[in-house]
Amino acid sequence: MNTTAAINERLKELEALKTDTFGKDFLLTWENSLDNLKAVMLVAEILQLLHWEKKPWRIFDYGLAISIFRDNSTRTRFSFASAVNGLGLALSELDEVKSQIAHGETVRETANMISFLTEVIGIRDDMYPGEGHTYMTEVANAVSDGFATGILAQRPTLVNLQCDLDHPTQSLSDLLKLKDYFGGWDNLKGKKIAMSWAYSPSYGKPLSVPQGVVNLMSRFGMDVVLAHPEGYDLLPDTLDSAKCFAQQSNGSFRITHSMSDAFKDADVVYPKSWAPMSVMQERTRMLRQGDKEGLKELERHCLAENARHSDWECTEEMMKLTHGGNALYEHCLPADISGVSCEQGEVAKSVFERYRLHTYQEAGYKPFVIAAMVFNSKVRDVVEKIRSFL
Amino acid sequence: MNTTAAINERLKELEALKTDTFGKDFLLTWENSLDNLKAVMLVAEILQLLHWEKKPWRIFDYGLAISIFRDNSTRTRFSFASAVNGLGLALSELDEVKSQIAHGETVRETANMISFLTEVIGIRDDMYPGEGHTYMTEVANAVSDGFATGILAQRPTLVNLQCDLDHPTQSLSDLLKLKDYFGGWDNLKGKKIAMSWAYSPSYGKPLSVPQGVVNLMSRFGMDVVLAHPEGYDLLPDTLDSAKCFAQQSNGSFRITHSMSDAFKDADVVYPKSWAPMSVMQERTRMLRQGDKEGLKELERHCLAENARHSDWECTEEMMKLTHGGNALYEHCLPADISGVSCEQGEVAKSVFERYRLHTYQEAGYKPFVIAAMVFNSKVRDVVEKIRSFL
Amino acid sequence: MNTTAAINERLKELEALKTDTFGKDFLLTWENSLDNLKAVMLVAEILQLLHWEKKPWRIFDYGLAISIFRDNSTRTRFSFASAVNGLGLALSELDEVKSQIAHGETVRETANMISFLTEVIGIRDDMYPGEGHTYMTEVANAVSDGFATGILAQRPTLVNLQCDLDHPTQSLSDLLKLKDYFGGWDNLKGKKIAMSWAYSPSYGKPLSVPQGVVNLMSRFGMDVVLAHPEGYDLLPDTLDSAKCFAQQSNGSFRITHSMSDAFKDADVVYPKSWAPMSVMQERTRMLRQGDKEGLKELERHCLAENARHSDWECTEEMMKLTHGGNALYEHCLPADISGVSCEQGEVAKSVFERYRLHTYQEAGYKPFVIAAMVFNSKVRDVVEKIRSFL
Repeated sequence: MNTTAAINERLKELEALKTDTFGKDFLLTWENSLDNLKAVMLVAEILQLLHWEKKPWRIFDYGLAISIFRDNSTRTRFSFASAVNGLGLALSELDEVKSQIAHGETVRETANMISFLTEVIGIRDDMYPGEGHTYMTEVANAVSDGFATGILAQRPTLVNLQCDLDHPTQSLSDLLKLKDYFGGWDNLKGKKIAMSWAYSPSYGKPLSVPQGVVNLMSRFGMDVVLAHPEGYDLLPDTLDSAKCFAQQSNGSFRITHSMSDAFKDADVVYPKSWAPMSVMQERTRMLRQGDKEGLKELERHCLAENARHSDWECTEEMMKLTHGGNALYEHCLPADISGVSCEQGEVAKSVFERYRLHTYQEAGYKPFVIAAMVFNSKVRDVVEKIRSFL
Repeated sequence: MNTTAAINERLKELEALKTDTFGKDFLLTWENSLDNLKAVMLVAEILQLLHWEKKPWRIFDYGLAISIFRDNSTRTRFSFASAVNGLGLALSELDEVKSQIAHGETVRETANMISFLTEVIGIRDDMYPGEGHTYMTEVANAVSDGFATGILAQRPTLVNLQCDLDHPTQSLSDLLKLKDYFGGWDNLKGKKIAMSWAYSPSYGKPLSVPQGVVNLMSRFGMDVVLAHPEGYDLLPDTLDSAKCFAQQSNGSFRITHSMSDAFKDADVVYPKSWAPMSVMQERTRMLRQGDKEGLKELERHCLAENARHSDWECTEEMMKLTHGGNALYEHCLPADISGVSCEQGEVAKSVFERYRLHTYQEAGYKPFVIAAMVFNSKVRDVVEKIRSFL
Repeated sequence: MNTTAAINERLKELEALKTDTFGKDFLLTWENSLDNLKAVMLVAEILQLLHWEKKPWRIFDYGLAISIFRDNSTRTRFSFASAVNGLGLALSELDEVKSQIAHGETVRETANMISFLTEVIGIRDDMYPGEGHTYMTEVANAVSDGFATGILAQRPTLVNLQCDLDHPTQSLSDLLKLKDYFGGWDNLKGKKIAMSWAYSPSYGKPLSVPQGVVNLMSRFGMDVVLAHPEGYDLLPDTLDSAKCFAQQSNGSFRITHSMSDAFKDADVVYPKSWAPMSVMQERTRMLRQGDKEGLKELERHCLAENARHSDWECTEEMMKLTHGGNALYEHCLPADISGVSCEQGEVAKSVFERYRLHTYQEAGYKPFVIAAMVFNSKVRDVVEKIRSFL
């Protein structure tokens, strides 16, 4: 299919959707209707198609996009930089060290002070349970207030670049890869996806990826199985909502403590390490108290606990259990690859290498998902605007 | 009044002014004629009006704006980023750590090496008396020389983002707020402004804000009262010039050592902490000598001295002394708010909260003041250029 | 000559060249034909002429340029920022600390992850023999692979901003200065250039500048003399190729261990410090092993060894030996100037000051050389595109 046809097909789908994204932030997939999510993904696909044709999709004459990274990042950082560049904005990173934030500026004040010409604020704040989403909400309220009281000429749109609850730019990219791989959303119905904990020699990875994945795939009629060793639970609320979504979509959601059980006949596997919620909470408490001894002891304990589950690896043996022995392997990258980035990790080298290009394509959606979130928040008539690019 | 009318009114005022800003840096308000200052403020207001209408005011096809921050900053950093973005430039920050500057590059050489495609250089260098303005002058001379000798195709315009003497982008924003609040410059004549020292648990804040404020407001016929405890003097030259400006404008300027005296019947209050000049000078000497013990002792001494004046707080009681009990409260932000950002500080929580939005509006002029400084330096026929945006 | 005439003359020269730069990286001058090199320099001159006329030479509607600096830099950093800005790209710096690279991302993966909307990648990696060029080749292969397999919509062009072997943006700027100074490439034939080691109180400067210079100037018929104390050898391969180039161009290349011998009758002198290759290799080994004691001892030894050659300074006496006593002095900057940036260094203060503006002009070519490298890689019909700017 040529590009124009592919775009037109998506525009037709878009026209049939009922969305309320205009003027809204994108913080959590589960705050959004199915139509909103589909609209973001369709626009992401269209912007990607335009990019391959080198047709510009700029919507701003000028303005800033600000990113706030409270954790390291490569691909999300560059995805955000790419997205806002394509939309016509200049990127400014709010470096909390260089700025005076440590010197007592409140979130409310700072959010307004940086926003006089700002159209987008992207935030990553994923390390501490109970913190990231709360912080994003504070920033969102602050700029809403600033806009309502005439301080700001425009209300910047917030984009969640990973919080303690969700990682929507990742999970929507994961889903777009599934859509492409299986040939459409309808084909995902009844497909089994294993979102599985996997062993890693590192410690303290956030919960937002598994939480985001089980809460998104369950809305598209998939049979979602969450697998992890006992004690590696996700936040209870996110489990409840995933159950609920599965019911609504005629999919299913269950939890198992066996990786093999999850992999059995799976069409998709997503093996990835994360820290137990209780450890993350304990760690947050210790960090706040500056309890260095406690933190060391906690890390020792947690790594030892992890090591008891080093058999949770996506090996060739494990892959043989999957549907036809060739389930699609997904990962948010970087993966802990046994014998490559660590001695033993989440995935066997041969498995990863076989699916490497698939994971790159999966990541390749992210700049366009971010751009689409902004696009759908800023553009009142999305379809008309896209037609103007053709 | 609608936007076009508001812009046209200001264009008429602009046309009546005699300015010589073309090709000039903006380093100190007191180097500029009253007409120059008015022209910057009128253009700032116009650019802000255009921004609210989302009408672009780009004047460059390409080119760099470089910022050099020798002290932390949030709002000035983002104001500069916003201003140069609106004008059509890309921002590059000169990070003196990442660059080889520590390795022996001279100011003259560096200034030219970074300026081959550079239109604007914004500098913050406010910590050491006798240093910031001197440094800016060195940079200015270096690029003048580079331009004169054919090294540079254009001479970058320098903008003072706060030095040891003045903070013109701040004081002009403060003044624009007063203009808006009282309904025009003429209405400022005879209004009393109390630029007062206030207690802060921190140490070593620069003198440029009070120096800038008393030297600017005194030019608009205001009754300027500078209040501080004994020993917290500003630089003598800046006091002399403020006196002189007050005479010229039929305003007045006096110094008092009583906060109440200053607040009595004031129409505007600006309570803000700063370090005594002598301490800043002592500190500079010690920093140069690497005298760590001396620095610690100086801080101890200075904080103890500050603590003797903890009653210099902008409380509700103090506010009652002002004209009608409701003088306008100004601050450059962030303020040390008692019970919010510190136990006891410059201003009571209830006072600050009542004027919070006013301080945000005050800060909101800054991106446009910076842009206007560049605009008036780069554009030969300012009025004609602005008309082209309408 | 007016600008248009100067541009047209260069366009005529360009049309006569046979180049194969389209779609290619620029990593080493010696990988490129003489025509390729001339084409880069002619386009650099044209872009500079356009810049002086303030005629834009943008070729991209949107897209990122990414810089990776594994060593400090001022002028190259800002040259790259300027070049990509003029071409229409937004700069993103890959900070290897902020990113997750330390956490095990492979070069292949990272190169693709940052490139979804990326048109240019500029890399400085000059500290370790055997590393920089290898790293750049890895990145180049990774994005080639990404483009070939449909991961990337475009293949980013790599530009070497200094590696362990070559510093092409520097040496081509040096050569453009020679072309301008002597009135054309033909006038360089038979001119003697002394690329000489010079004393510096610092330690560990890379070899890429002298290697780059002897391998470039030898291709334009110059008599190239490389001078250094015994033990300060360059990489053998780069000496072999310089010999070979000299033969092909009817120039000459020889090595001497006497600065006076090199300066005798020289038309151009390039006195600059570098570390002995063997020391750089030893240092790389120790850094890898984390051998801090060894590193300290090596530095002590190397500085002592350097100090034995403190008479290798470009003094007025030395300059008197040159052709007419007024050879052109070149340097990549910053120079170690005796009595200015150090007690004793590479060049006497009076000599440097006499040639200061010449060194600034030399540096002034760099933004346009970088831009031309990208231009010639991205634009299929270079002459036609340039005509569209006129």
